[in-house]
Amino acid sequence: MERTAGPTNSLLDVPGLAVGHHQRVGDGWLTGTTVVRCPADGAVAGADVRGGAPGTRETDLLDPRNLVERAHAVVLSGGSAFGLAAADGVMRALYADGRGFPMGGPGEVVPIVPAAVCFDLGRGGDFGAFPDAGFGVAALGAAVEAAAGSTGEQEVPLGNVGAGTGTQVGGLRGGVGTASGVLADGTTVAALVVVNAVGSAVDVATGELWGARHLVPEDLTGLGQWPDGRWPQRPTAEELQAARAAAEEANATSRVPRSLATTIGVVATDAALDPAQCARLATSGHDGMARAVNPIHTMFDGDSLFGIATCDRGRPDPEVFHGMLHLSGEVVTRAMVRAVLAAGTVTTPAGTWRSYLDAFPSAARP
Amino acid sequence: MERTAGPTNSLLDVPGLAVGHHQRVGDGWLTGTTVVRCPADGAVAGADVRGGAPGTRETDLLDPRNLVERAHAVVLSGGSAFGLAAADGVMRALYADGRGFPMGGPGEVVPIVPAAVCFDLGRGGDFGAFPDAGFGVAALGAAVEAAAGSTGEQEVPLGNVGAGTGTQVGGLRGGVGTASGVLADGTTVAALVVVNAVGSAVDVATGELWGARHLVPEDLTGLGQWPDGRWPQRPTAEELQAARAAAEEANATSRVPRSLATTIGVVATDAALDPAQCARLATSGHDGMARAVNPIHTMFDGDSLFGIATCDRGRPDPEVFHGMLHLSGEVVTRAMVRAVLAAGTVTTPAGTWRSYLDAFPSAARP
Repeated sequence: MERTAGPTNSLLDVPGLAVGHHQRVGDGWLTGTTVVRCPADGAVAGADVRGGAPGTRETDLLDPRNLVERAHAVVLSGGSAFGLAAADGVMRALYADGRGFPMGGPGEVVPIVPAAVCFDLGRGGDFGAFPDAGFGVAALGAAVEAAAGSTGEQEVPLGNVGAGTGTQVGGLRGGVGTASGVLADGTTVAALVVVNAVGSAVDVATGELWGARHLVPEDLTGLGQWPDGRWPQRPTAEELQAARAAAEEANATSRVPRSLATTIGVVATDAALDPAQCARLATSGHDGMARAVNPIHTMFDGDSLFGIATCDRGRPDPEVFHGMLHLSGEVVTRAMVRAVLAAGTVTTPAGTWRSYLDAFPSAARP
Repeated sequence: MERTAGPTNSLLDVPGLAVGHHQRVGDGWLTGTTVVRCPADGAVAGADVRGGAPGTRETDLLDPRNLVERAHAVVLSGGSAFGLAAADGVMRALYADGRGFPMGGPGEVVPIVPAAVCFDLGRGGDFGAFPDAGFGVAALGAAVEAAAGSTGEQEVPLGNVGAGTGTQVGGLRGGVGTASGVLADGTTVAALVVVNAVGSAVDVATGELWGARHLVPEDLTGLGQWPDGRWPQRPTAEELQAARAAAEEANATSRVPRSLATTIGVVATDAALDPAQCARLATSGHDGMARAVNPIHTMFDGDSLFGIATCDRGRPDPEVFHGMLHLSGEVVTRAMVRAVLAAGTVTTPAGTWRSYLDAFPSAARP
């Protein structure tokens, strides 16, 4: 399989998609919302909900046996089930913009906005500081602005933004990551993932990130601290020992439950897929999750992925679709590694979550 | 998590289970059947069918919403959908033994025998040489004999036996593998997996087995060629180059489709689970598949796992169940690596499938 990233190595390599983040940090807050806006007439969508404690909306609608095939935006949010409210705001804003499933009369549309949430309640210090409809409006606004180019060159911020603001993974800081790949025939598959998990992104036997071996050179550009194309190094034994001790201490002192998490995201393509194929794209993305975090899909993670297809290209033949599924797993793993590498350490009244690179600084040594 | 294998490091570490293989090799044949016999009153069972081209029976019965909770044996077979016939033989033999779901009168039982098959048609040279009911009877007989101790010390043969006879994985020989683990509270989780996949067990960037980093020292004992507890070594660059060339040649010359495969297996525990929890055990096992083979769960693999619980122990609390799910992924990955390490090269009129260790002999260097 090709190991070629797209031009932006992000979800934006699928034309027509826009990504926006909104977050609030401090005064008890440490949470946010990420919106993926689809083209005006929507994108075909499917879902695969695999974790044991999911928080979602509009996934039943996406069942291939049901009527509606296209979504107009996808919402990923912190705030646990409260965060589903962010989709309300996105619906109203899309409605005002005339985007939605047409119901007959002019302006009479119902925007289809599937959503999935992850658990970050209390990590900023205040359990009640969770996203509301306004977070969805703001994140959608950021997506629209970014798409309009008003923020300069299009790129998707990584790390602790949007729904990645309050995330953790096995005691380290989580975040938002994105990555893309292009098949030989030109089909693009891209992922945006919010990494938040009970399990660990680190192989505790070596200190290496489980998913690092799936990276391509482009995955380290844009992260700042990496010599171009240099893989994360194996951490030193001293760092490994210190990280284990810190993890044990964090377990003992954290005031908020580490035992709820959830990794959520979107896998997108420019190929023409039906809803069942979109769900299958998400299924393969879950294999990518399994390669980046261990364990994953636990009873305390509501791990969910949406698959969306903008259908700018033709329908893939079985061989191309096979390549797309393979690539779906790869871009999800890579997006998750990038999320963890882009994350920063944070301290709130609820505790401290160190970043991988603060816990293992030698991973970035030249 | 504990990285402790059980006493036999096999499915037999779950008391009450018995494993038998039957295979036929030569004269056009290269296929077989593996049977896992449950205790006399059955084991609670669930299933997770994840691949795009499955061949199964009795999985709907195992849906947690349906009546029957217990299976009396599980059949894993080569022969693609034809191989489902092996379960007919197992049913008749169990019926004759009085084992089954009681329907009222004496001896009136219906044995519940879920089954999953994998594709190996034509690999021995004759497309029509596939398992029938007699294969199921013979494999069940082998399980009964093994359980009775008539074959000496109980151990599960690995590699190219039973349903692992005609298997391949990414162009190399597949096989049957098994592994077990024990949690701190004494709960055992064990897997038996038939490795047969379109994807590869080998990271082509390094020649290493994807799943090798999940091994525990006991995983290499019983495989013969390994200094005790020594991990597979990284193959040499020359071997890697030669293996890539051989894979390309095999792609060009094989007379049978490489594009159909399927990994199938059983994850078992001595804990008391309900059917939904058994299915969840299988779900986590699929994450273990994703860590051993890439890609997995393709449209050309019918990857399916059964979860079974003998219920000798009590119901696990949420923390223990979490550990069981984690361990399920680990034992599946380890079983798959052991299958590949135990496999041998085979040549038939249809082609040659080299073993991993014949392709990468330096992996076993001291």
